[in-house]
Amino acid sequence: MERQRRHKRRDAKRAPAAEPRTPFVVRKLSTFNVLSEAGLEQIEANADRILAETGMEFQDDPGILKIFADAGCDVSGTRVRFAPGFCRNKITTTAPSEFVQHARNPANNVQLGGDATVLCPSWGPPFVHDLDRGRRYASYEDFTNLVKLHHNLPWLHHSGGVVCEPVDLPANKRHLDMLYAHIRYSDRAFMGAFIGAERAGHAIDMARILFGADFVAENPVLYCVSNTNAPLVMDSHMSGALKTYARAGQPVACTPWVLTGAMSPTTVAGTLAQVLAETMAAMTLVQLVAPGAPCLMGSFASTMSMKSGAPTFGTPEAGLMVLAAGQLARRLGVPLHTVGTLSSSKVPDAQSQQEAAWGLLMSMFAGANLINHATGWLEGGLVTSFEKTIIDHDLCGKVARFFDGIDLSENAQAMEAIAATGPGQHFLGSEHTQANFMTALFRPWTPDDSSFEQWQADGSKDAAKRANAIWKEQLQNYEDPGLDPDIDAALKDYIAQRKSEKPDQDYY
Amino acid sequence: MERQRRHKRRDAKRAPAAEPRTPFVVRKLSTFNVLSEAGLEQIEANADRILAETGMEFQDDPGILKIFADAGCDVSGTRVRFAPGFCRNKITTTAPSEFVQHARNPANNVQLGGDATVLCPSWGPPFVHDLDRGRRYASYEDFTNLVKLHHNLPWLHHSGGVVCEPVDLPANKRHLDMLYAHIRYSDRAFMGAFIGAERAGHAIDMARILFGADFVAENPVLYCVSNTNAPLVMDSHMSGALKTYARAGQPVACTPWVLTGAMSPTTVAGTLAQVLAETMAAMTLVQLVAPGAPCLMGSFASTMSMKSGAPTFGTPEAGLMVLAAGQLARRLGVPLHTVGTLSSSKVPDAQSQQEAAWGLLMSMFAGANLINHATGWLEGGLVTSFEKTIIDHDLCGKVARFFDGIDLSENAQAMEAIAATGPGQHFLGSEHTQANFMTALFRPWTPDDSSFEQWQADGSKDAAKRANAIWKEQLQNYEDPGLDPDIDAALKDYIAQRKSEKPDQDYY
Repeated sequence: MERQRRHKRRDAKRAPAAEPRTPFVVRKLSTFNVLSEAGLEQIEANADRILAETGMEFQDDPGILKIFADAGCDVSGTRVRFAPGFCRNKITTTAPSEFVQHARNPANNVQLGGDATVLCPSWGPPFVHDLDRGRRYASYEDFTNLVKLHHNLPWLHHSGGVVCEPVDLPANKRHLDMLYAHIRYSDRAFMGAFIGAERAGHAIDMARILFGADFVAENPVLYCVSNTNAPLVMDSHMSGALKTYARAGQPVACTPWVLTGAMSPTTVAGTLAQVLAETMAAMTLVQLVAPGAPCLMGSFASTMSMKSGAPTFGTPEAGLMVLAAGQLARRLGVPLHTVGTLSSSKVPDAQSQQEAAWGLLMSMFAGANLINHATGWLEGGLVTSFEKTIIDHDLCGKVARFFDGIDLSENAQAMEAIAATGPGQHFLGSEHTQANFMTALFRPWTPDDSSFEQWQADGSKDAAKRANAIWKEQLQNYEDPGLDPDIDAALKDYIAQRKSEKPDQDYY
Repeated sequence: MERQRRHKRRDAKRAPAAEPRTPFVVRKLSTFNVLSEAGLEQIEANADRILAETGMEFQDDPGILKIFADAGCDVSGTRVRFAPGFCRNKITTTAPSEFVQHARNPANNVQLGGDATVLCPSWGPPFVHDLDRGRRYASYEDFTNLVKLHHNLPWLHHSGGVVCEPVDLPANKRHLDMLYAHIRYSDRAFMGAFIGAERAGHAIDMARILFGADFVAENPVLYCVSNTNAPLVMDSHMSGALKTYARAGQPVACTPWVLTGAMSPTTVAGTLAQVLAETMAAMTLVQLVAPGAPCLMGSFASTMSMKSGAPTFGTPEAGLMVLAAGQLARRLGVPLHTVGTLSSSKVPDAQSQQEAAWGLLMSMFAGANLINHATGWLEGGLVTSFEKTIIDHDLCGKVARFFDGIDLSENAQAMEAIAATGPGQHFLGSEHTQANFMTALFRPWTPDDSSFEQWQADGSKDAAKRANAIWKEQLQNYEDPGLDPDIDAALKDYIAQRKSEKPDQDYY
């Protein structure tokens, strides 16, 4: 069986980007710190106190309670309490600080940790939205279209997971179809099914078919997001997948999802301590189950409107929390998983981009190593927008170029060009400009920089309308990376077998 | 004559902001650095070399050439060359690192320098735009409406200058009407006329009527933006105003305005050296004219589309340039003047906010001390948008809250609330949430965070449509700060005299 077949892509057709695509962002600039040493120690002490005094619930899985008890933790019913320093010690002792998630096209392998940031598409929405058809329940056709679209976008790095929920497929089986779409239509890294041990096992089986069992035994090829049920609970849906991936050596992003005021205190400092407590407890479970298994500190902390009870995004407090989370993750020596261009807007309008730009920039300044929802999210995660995917994608390109820092080469210093041009003249025709203009400036796809008159002549289109044309063009230009026919057949067989084992259930 | 009369404002009616308005942002977080010590030294050495070898043109003002020659500079025709280190030495020796610009309401005085950031509205556009009347030439009615609107916006700090060009008034006299509107309809600090010595003199005269000549002699009460004509030229329109303000002890922001590839090299490092050279030459002129007069390093460096030749904003390169400019200004020991929510979009859409959020955040991370165009700019500065003013104003509030940092008080740590709530419960009804929810979270005005169904029921309005209702409401709620009738009469007399001295000229 031919594994990891290479397919040459013709980039010329794909993207107007002048520079070759990079498989992930390499940040040459520093991170931005919002807490002092004393502040960090305070949050860490508070997290330890929460874990020691209140502890965390691990529900519906006696096996996990036994694992914690065997490790010397205080287990009472489903409540597990941890001695101060226990979790930190486990994590810092055995969790790797960086690792590679492999893609079937090795050019698309992603580094998780260090100065690398991996940008992933929208994850989880049951609806999709585009300007032509409006807001609607997502289908498997939407799902495959999104996978194909993402595959074509140069400034995204990862095929993601539930890019939308294909609610036309049965809930108990659609994970198989989603995994198939990622494997078949993209050659980038992708995420495993994240709910329950059984589905996680299916993802690992399919990865073995794709990469070979030996390779999977030795290398991360999947990525699992494991959410806690804040405050301070983990249920067996999440812990089951967590254990399964950890035992298979596959990375788990241990991610408390909190909205301040509802699932955590309404204050930033209180939320940070709780988030740190929850993620440390989950990462400790990973390390107890499989010492040395890759895991990430996850942080998905946003705010809530105390007027409507609705989640709010792109807020000052969310920015402060992700920046502090970055500092806390670095002190634990694990990569940071977080979130990107979130918005509660219903449409790809000004609100959506004010919130999106805020969110993605903050996560980048935080030194996040994987940013989920870097494109497309609308309506607090209920909708993946095709147009917003394109507009957010410009932001992905912008942050990559920005974090590349300032070129200080002799050419970039341009001292001869300045001397040769002289006062009052322009640089438009200068040799230096001619030699550098194709690469010196990043060129996003969506903005209209033309004159008002030209813009009118072009139909007075706002950014969303221009993005509508761009995603269609990108989808039309989709280049199939191909898949070895034997692997394809084996995957289809596997899926058919799994589907035949039980009746369809739960369309939602 | 009663000077600096206080007028109590009833804030309850003005803003839903829960916290009292602050007169400027105080940044409790650090700045973000993009250049190393070696990189900074390289840019500084390059700027010195430009000033020494190419020099700068000071056109149409022999008096300035004499000032430079008397100071020992190499003057040849209109070209002035500076010995390496000369400019830096002048600036660091006598220019103040921070100062206060006084407003007629002392509660609105603004600090320029240090950890303070002052956010100013849009500046310069000949057009205005709103959703009802579309894009149109700006009138004096628009001008006064913008002054009133800005006066009511809590997260702006300054009344600005040319908030739009009232093109229905003659170009040679409208500065008098603009100054009057700022003085009459707002009690915040404002900018002086910036073109030519004569108009600058008028602004100083009017300030003397408002504040008293003795007060103006001792205190900054105006603010002047003085642009170079990049590359490496200053004409007498700008140098005339610069000299006049400097001699009156009024601050001048010495601001090269460059678009890379046109008015500077197409590369970031080349542009930075040129910007530094130009601003240092202009600040040196301030210090030679009036040693110790307040001045700011200005930086308005953006990029240009090499496809259309149009200016582009919110770009990675513009971000890098303003962050580097912040570092360079701190090493000169002067405050940084720069720009905010710039966009080339024609409408307050997704593009406008992706670019606006990028621009304002970068300037804030740069530690900018005054940010011009923090609200309203569209179409590369041709348009002030009423709706974008409101949407950008949310960003102004967000950055203020963000840079306030993380509250680490015992209350904010919320340890008791976490212990009392416990695993699996929610914090909505918790005593801690009830006590803190009004102040813990910043609440912007424009976002819609409600459900899709509620949003539909409310008319499916995008952010621009919601902002349309908000600016009208704010304008309706405008509270006249009043003005001493004697001062008002004296100002009107002064304006009438100046207007009678020459015929109207140049409507544009």
